[in-house]
Amino acid sequence: ILRLLSPKGARLNRLIDLKNAKVVNTVPAEEIKGKAVFCRCWKSQKFPYCDGTHAKHNEATGDNVGPLIVTLAEKK
Amino acid sequence: ILRLLSPKGARLNRLIDLKNAKVVNTVPAEEIKGKAVFCRCWKSQKFPYCDGTHAKHNEATGDNVGPLIVTLAEKK
Ligand code: FES
Ligand code: FES
Repeated sequence: ILRLLSPKGARLNRLIDLKNAKVVNTVPAEEIKGKAVFCRCWKSQKFPYCDGTHAKHNEATGDNVGPLIVTLAEKK
Repeated sequence: ILRLLSPKGARLNRLIDLKNAKVVNTVPAEEIKGKAVFCRCWKSQKFPYCDGTHAKHNEATGDNVGPLIVTLAEKK
């Protein structure tokens, strides 16, 4: 029932850089070693990287969010 | 007051691939032309890419979320 009371009005981020008006992170792909896993649940302690906390969040809320993975093949 | 009623229990995603148990996207950095802008607000019509909808979301909810930008310098 709590979910029904706030179907669309809730903020997503309650943890990351809250004093910033808009949290944008920029990562050069050249720094990626093989792959990088980026958080989209706003609950990672390693933000902007995923630390797996999305699993707890999904279990607690019935959500289905997960990370963005960016791969970069090693140069041969 | 609605915000107070659901401080931590709300799901983030109400739009994207809802039948999927966990939405993970994988993007090869080699496909990025200059830069790619990835959605972290779960409201983009171009998900996993950002279409700017985070601005509406932030204004409506007081949130401060924004995209992840991955850059890839062009080969010279
Ligand atoms: S910890 Fe946020 S998506 Fe994995
Ligand atoms: S539209 Fe979702 S972060 Fe921009």
